[in-house]
Amino acid sequence: MLKDIVRTKTYQNVITQSSFLIKDKIVLDVGAGTGILSLFCAKAGAKHVYAIECSQMADMAKEIVNTNGYSNVITVIKGKVEEIELPVPKVDVIISEWMGYFLLFENMLNTVLYARDKWLAEDGVVLPDRCSLHLTAIEDADYKEDKIEFWNNVYGFDMSCIKKQAMMEPLVDTVDANQIVTNCQLLKTMDISKMTSGDASFTVPFKLTAERNDYIHALVAYFNVSFTKCHKLMGFSTGPKSKATHWKQTVLYLEDVITICEGETLTGSMTVSNNKKNPRDIDIKLKYLLNGQRSQVSRTQFYKMR
Amino acid sequence: MLKDIVRTKTYQNVITQSSFLIKDKIVLDVGAGTGILSLFCAKAGAKHVYAIECSQMADMAKEIVNTNGYSNVITVIKGKVEEIELPVPKVDVIISEWMGYFLLFENMLNTVLYARDKWLAEDGVVLPDRCSLHLTAIEDADYKEDKIEFWNNVYGFDMSCIKKQAMMEPLVDTVDANQIVTNCQLLKTMDISKMTSGDASFTVPFKLTAERNDYIHALVAYFNVSFTKCHKLMGFSTGPKSKATHWKQTVLYLEDVITICEGETLTGSMTVSNNKKNPRDIDIKLKYLLNGQRSQVSRTQFYKMR
Repeated sequence: MLKDIVRTKTYQNVITQSSFLIKDKIVLDVGAGTGILSLFCAKAGAKHVYAIECSQMADMAKEIVNTNGYSNVITVIKGKVEEIELPVPKVDVIISEWMGYFLLFENMLNTVLYARDKWLAEDGVVLPDRCSLHLTAIEDADYKEDKIEFWNNVYGFDMSCIKKQAMMEPLVDTVDANQIVTNCQLLKTMDISKMTSGDASFTVPFKLTAERNDYIHALVAYFNVSFTKCHKLMGFSTGPKSKATHWKQTVLYLEDVITICEGETLTGSMTVSNNKKNPRDIDIKLKYLLNGQRSQVSRTQFYKMR
Repeated sequence: MLKDIVRTKTYQNVITQSSFLIKDKIVLDVGAGTGILSLFCAKAGAKHVYAIECSQMADMAKEIVNTNGYSNVITVIKGKVEEIELPVPKVDVIISEWMGYFLLFENMLNTVLYARDKWLAEDGVVLPDRCSLHLTAIEDADYKEDKIEFWNNVYGFDMSCIKKQAMMEPLVDTVDANQIVTNCQLLKTMDISKMTSGDASFTVPFKLTAERNDYIHALVAYFNVSFTKCHKLMGFSTGPKSKATHWKQTVLYLEDVITICEGETLTGSMTVSNNKKNPRDIDIKLKYLLNGQRSQVSRTQFYKMR
């Protein structure tokens, strides 16, 4: 994950260039991993950094902190955010790289919100503090054939029951910007410094307008991340027009192949919620409608990220 | 996995072309997955096929068997081989695609041997019945730099303690045949129809002779699979000179960069055993020695596949 340069470099630039946010502050790093963000903060002059990591990586992080001479500034705490105790009542800054595929997958946002509510000082800062989810539509004939229609005839056998399941699984993959058929639309903005965990479940409308005559095989979701408390706005996009990240994009294949003409609009809504049984899973409901010259569709589809 | 054409096509060819092994026989498919091997056998005229699958995929396999009209020939049994009961005392053929990375990873071989000892008739056949493990040596300067030395300086911080761990993890990846510096040596042959589970733990010597002046950064292990009961020998190789499979190859990086001259030999031994704590994990001990013109090395290294 450290090799995702877009991600790690953005955090490094935010911390280095906005040292006024970090210098002499008490910082909490939620889900610290190797401790890289804590190290950035320590180097930028943080008064103290508490790095919480629940996996075995915490032991590695401790060793890395020692090796790099920051053991007096960074305290690695091995445990779950919801279970550990902090040696201080409040922190000035919470930093975290919690974003999952489709922004919300694996549900680590809740852990950040828990830490914020419990430990962040009243005028404290959350980094990053703004995320947005976006939607566009692509033509993807070859890949859909390969991934989905494949199951119709597998070495001569009909495995189409697997196709139904394959359709329900959003595909995390890199989309070529040339495949994009419509505009890209903002679906939802989240303010990490204010939102509640309930705000991560929502229904939002969308209206995508075709920019050329083409077919639509899938809708594609991606997210942007912003640090609005910096001197100037900083952040990154995981969209298909931006430099690739390990998050890639999230492709939702449609049951229909939609024939769309330039200027026509595909409208609908997306409902996102945590799965009741497995809260780390995400249920997505997609409604879409096109009354076009050459294609009429109206359908509701369900997806599950797991 | 079905998309690994080398693998699935070989099984299909074996079953189709050697129908004398299958026709009117009772077949047991160990770890059936989607049921593809059972379907091949049913189509080839098996009297009955028992397809054992312990995952949720068993439900899919049942539906696929029904859809394709083989529910009178194939019985899908959902459960663990060690726990289920077969409606027949003996079977004529056991077929299985049990091979893991480095042949033995995930230890499904034991399950096949268990099924063989419990249910295979005295003159019964195991498909496949012969596997072999092979070793060669490669130069891999760029990749080793990227994967291993990376940890020496991560955005300015020393994370070399992770490097030690990275070195211990065999890397499953596709090796370019042009990287091969020495001959390829057979390490170990296994006869699945006769071996015991203890035979999967072993120490074997090796002697690799350089075919050009080059550097060696890693040893590479791969396996071949044979069906010797066919009319003619059939099978496939997962080696770097053969068509790629999903098993790729297994790369063991060396602590030393070995400078080797054409004709010089790298000798040593490899010890393979199941991890005591987690029997699905594999411990590999590598001893190697070179007394060359330009390089002298003698070292023992430990790896863990998990």
